[in-house]
Amino acid sequence: MDKISIGLLGLGTVGGGVYQLLQRDNEAINRRLGAELVVEKILVSDLKKARNHEIDKSLLTADPKDVIDNEEIDIVVELIGGTKVAKELVEAALKKGKSVVTANKELIANHGSEIFDLAESAGVEIDFEASVAGGIPIIGPLKDSLVGNKIVKIMGIVNGTTNYILSKMSEGDEYDHVLAEAQELGYAERDPSADVSGDDAGAKIAILSSIAFNSRVTPKEVYTEGITSVSLNDIMYAYELGYAIKLVALAKKRGDELDVRVHPTMISLDHPLAKVDDVYNAIFVVGDAVGELMFFGKGAGDMPTASAVVGDIFKVAGNLKKEKKCYSTCTCFNSFNVKPIDEVESNFYILMEVLDRPGVLAKIAKILGEEGVSLGSVIQKQSSGNLAELVFMTHLVREGNLRSALSKVSDLEDVDRVCNVIRVETGEDG
Amino acid sequence: MDKISIGLLGLGTVGGGVYQLLQRDNEAINRRLGAELVVEKILVSDLKKARNHEIDKSLLTADPKDVIDNEEIDIVVELIGGTKVAKELVEAALKKGKSVVTANKELIANHGSEIFDLAESAGVEIDFEASVAGGIPIIGPLKDSLVGNKIVKIMGIVNGTTNYILSKMSEGDEYDHVLAEAQELGYAERDPSADVSGDDAGAKIAILSSIAFNSRVTPKEVYTEGITSVSLNDIMYAYELGYAIKLVALAKKRGDELDVRVHPTMISLDHPLAKVDDVYNAIFVVGDAVGELMFFGKGAGDMPTASAVVGDIFKVAGNLKKEKKCYSTCTCFNSFNVKPIDEVESNFYILMEVLDRPGVLAKIAKILGEEGVSLGSVIQKQSSGNLAELVFMTHLVREGNLRSALSKVSDLEDVDRVCNVIRVETGEDG
Repeated sequence: MDKISIGLLGLGTVGGGVYQLLQRDNEAINRRLGAELVVEKILVSDLKKARNHEIDKSLLTADPKDVIDNEEIDIVVELIGGTKVAKELVEAALKKGKSVVTANKELIANHGSEIFDLAESAGVEIDFEASVAGGIPIIGPLKDSLVGNKIVKIMGIVNGTTNYILSKMSEGDEYDHVLAEAQELGYAERDPSADVSGDDAGAKIAILSSIAFNSRVTPKEVYTEGITSVSLNDIMYAYELGYAIKLVALAKKRGDELDVRVHPTMISLDHPLAKVDDVYNAIFVVGDAVGELMFFGKGAGDMPTASAVVGDIFKVAGNLKKEKKCYSTCTCFNSFNVKPIDEVESNFYILMEVLDRPGVLAKIAKILGEEGVSLGSVIQKQSSGNLAELVFMTHLVREGNLRSALSKVSDLEDVDRVCNVIRVETGEDG
Repeated sequence: MDKISIGLLGLGTVGGGVYQLLQRDNEAINRRLGAELVVEKILVSDLKKARNHEIDKSLLTADPKDVIDNEEIDIVVELIGGTKVAKELVEAALKKGKSVVTANKELIANHGSEIFDLAESAGVEIDFEASVAGGIPIIGPLKDSLVGNKIVKIMGIVNGTTNYILSKMSEGDEYDHVLAEAQELGYAERDPSADVSGDDAGAKIAILSSIAFNSRVTPKEVYTEGITSVSLNDIMYAYELGYAIKLVALAKKRGDELDVRVHPTMISLDHPLAKVDDVYNAIFVVGDAVGELMFFGKGAGDMPTASAVVGDIFKVAGNLKKEKKCYSTCTCFNSFNVKPIDEVESNFYILMEVLDRPGVLAKIAKILGEEGVSLGSVIQKQSSGNLAELVFMTHLVREGNLRSALSKVSDLEDVDRVCNVIRVETGEDG
């Protein structure tokens, strides 16, 4: 099989995640590309540093030339961060005719224009899905899937640290205490200023608005206000008035002008963004054809970000391959069985009407137990006349067992009828 | 400029929407493709039927051959629906070497395998983003952006009619009454059986699970239970136990078996899907690298569906174009100004502490009024000692005006301090 060779710049948490994802069995990628993605070289700053993951040591190098000048390498993946070394190496790679994938929001937000010009004149591609909102697909959908729309508005919760802090404050905790807790949990940096000032969100909305409105917006053009001035009092009054306070990165088109800013924003409690809590991110997009959309997920972390990087590598690799045939539409190369419903394990809610007399519950529970139906909770309520309603919540049980137990329960004289059985998605089964 | 020619099969609500979107100025599409998308022919069943939109009559034909056998046409867009005529025409188009875009879930769910084989042997592409969840980008992200993940689970609210009914029932309305109301509003068909039986959702989860697990799943393999047995009583007990009842289309991989089904499901009120109400759709995806994602939006309707169709046309057209250079990475061909923050209009929340004595509110309101700051609501509360807290919610006001008004208000002897000013996103400004 053909191979497409990858050079990684950086092997920190995200770099390690990308390496892991590329090392494992990737049948879907290989079949659809008609080629294998192979990590050829990895630039690290310290060859001797202990690594979390098992890494083939022969791949490591401390010399950028081993990646940039390497004729074997088709795609360079930049995961160093910042705008100094990263910028030099990305530019060098593009000039050498290599396509680039990066997760670097500062680089794209501040120097996107030069970098894209360079890519275009070199006839190569640069992709950067991971630079905004980690693993959430947003740049691809905005650029491609929604290309038929005029984008009206983007409202993003694109900084997990501040969303965590505001969420916890809305439960009554003071800023300083929540920040300390977030730092302990690894949700906030030791120096949280880039997050709490809104600068991180500012770089991200600069990227998103550039794409949405086809017009370059740089971070210094984005009005930015952080969350440090938000008090518990504000949050309480907001709630009383029907609003949640979120750090929103906002972009709208108004005539031939753009309105792009980041600041604490009161959002109606009914709005989908108001319900996005903790470290989650979400981007709410309004297009003139599609209406309201929201993309929700984890906006940071090694593996979510690595997921976005690998998606971009796949995209670039597909464009590098000449033979379009490999891009076959059908991706069903497995043939798994679909389980018959009787063999599926679920948690169940069961509502039944029974005669309101002593011992009924015990009889039912006995039958359920004999059939392997284990109960989580039971509610009993007086219904009409001499009937009572029983509500059972079961632990995980094979559907076939439940059906057979319920058929026996229905036969009891004391049981008027089983009114309904509803599956409960508890996540208990993963 | 080059052109890429489109043949539309069908000019119903979605077809009309696609035609409209392709007719208007599409600079982003044209520049990025280096080609224009041109509608060449439209197959209709009745040439004389009155149309909602202005249509160039010379494009219309009642003869399928004018599209299928038309050498000019590069991409055939099937918007007829069903699996009879639509299937014949899609197959004929693929055999003629034309790429196909379709919104037809029955066709893809039931005959995907044959159709994809045909496309592959003809060396063309078939795309079908609009077949699941209307305008929400889900098939593209699942196939491409998330290709580095092993998909663990998909849980979708993919039928707007039943979600509307269950949402309204959770407010205490009986099924029959809500259904009648939904029919009046156009949210439910005269014959709602495909929706309320779960069959519509079944076809959609067959498509999504085929993609997620790279293994063909057909609708008849999907266990399906509708919402007609869900009672107000069930919804009330569920709520009491901390759950919402939703019609969930679910797919999980368990070892080498798939668990794919559609049924009313109790979901924890904390789960993002529990908050998806009315006709909205949402697809919750868990990938082993990316973690939890959710894609939310309108799952039906002419323009949302047309948005997805145009996104697919763009994708196919990009693959048809040989010169990769046109796919330049930079999409910033406009140069809009970003508004200075002083010129931005917002609604504001203002919290201030004032001396608790008569006439203060009047003085403040007078200054605000003079500066053009119009008030929505005011809350006044006793604070500590001789201070009171005032909370104002303004109507839309230019930020510069507000700043100047607040500076004058701060100068008042009666005003201790303006504690905070937070922008409110009411949607009042669109």
